[in-house]
Amino acid sequence: MAKFMDVHHGMTGITDEELKQAHAADLAIQREEGVTFQHAWADPDEGVVYCLSEAPDADAVQRIHQRAGHPADEIHRVPLTV
Amino acid sequence: MAKFMDVHHGMTGITDEELKQAHAADLAIQREEGVTFQHAWADPDEGVVYCLSEAPDADAVQRIHQRAGHPADEIHRVPLTV
Repeated sequence: MAKFMDVHHGMTGITDEELKQAHAADLAIQREEGVTFQHAWADPDEGVVYCLSEAPDADAVQRIHQRAGHPADEIHRVPLTV
Repeated sequence: MAKFMDVHHGMTGITDEELKQAHAADLAIQREEGVTFQHAWADPDEGVVYCLSEAPDADAVQRIHQRAGHPADEIHRVPLTV
């Protein structure tokens, strides 16, 4: 398992409810790819969302996000953490 | 207090030790601006570092990062969290 930070752009105006729903859609199917989404942070003004997860690889993260209807624009493996 | 995610680019090859030292340099002076750095995640392959903090505003985050020698390239207020 590795840690990933993925980034979604173009989310200007996202609401708390929409973020929660998007996260719940990920959680509902994440086990099928061995992914665990841990946190998400959203900047509605600039339309950026960051998601932190643990997963076998970046493709698994993307498959869950795609099936949940919100593919990521960037997925970074972040092996270093403080 | 608000939550911020800031991003540093051009950090290709950053090591665990360098990330820890950079974070420690922030922690050493963060109180002077009322900032609390909580976590940092680094992707050494693509040279991206993400820092999560609580702070009065984005300028306070930047002042600490600048004085510690590593100004952020982007600072996003992230009022929505899951």
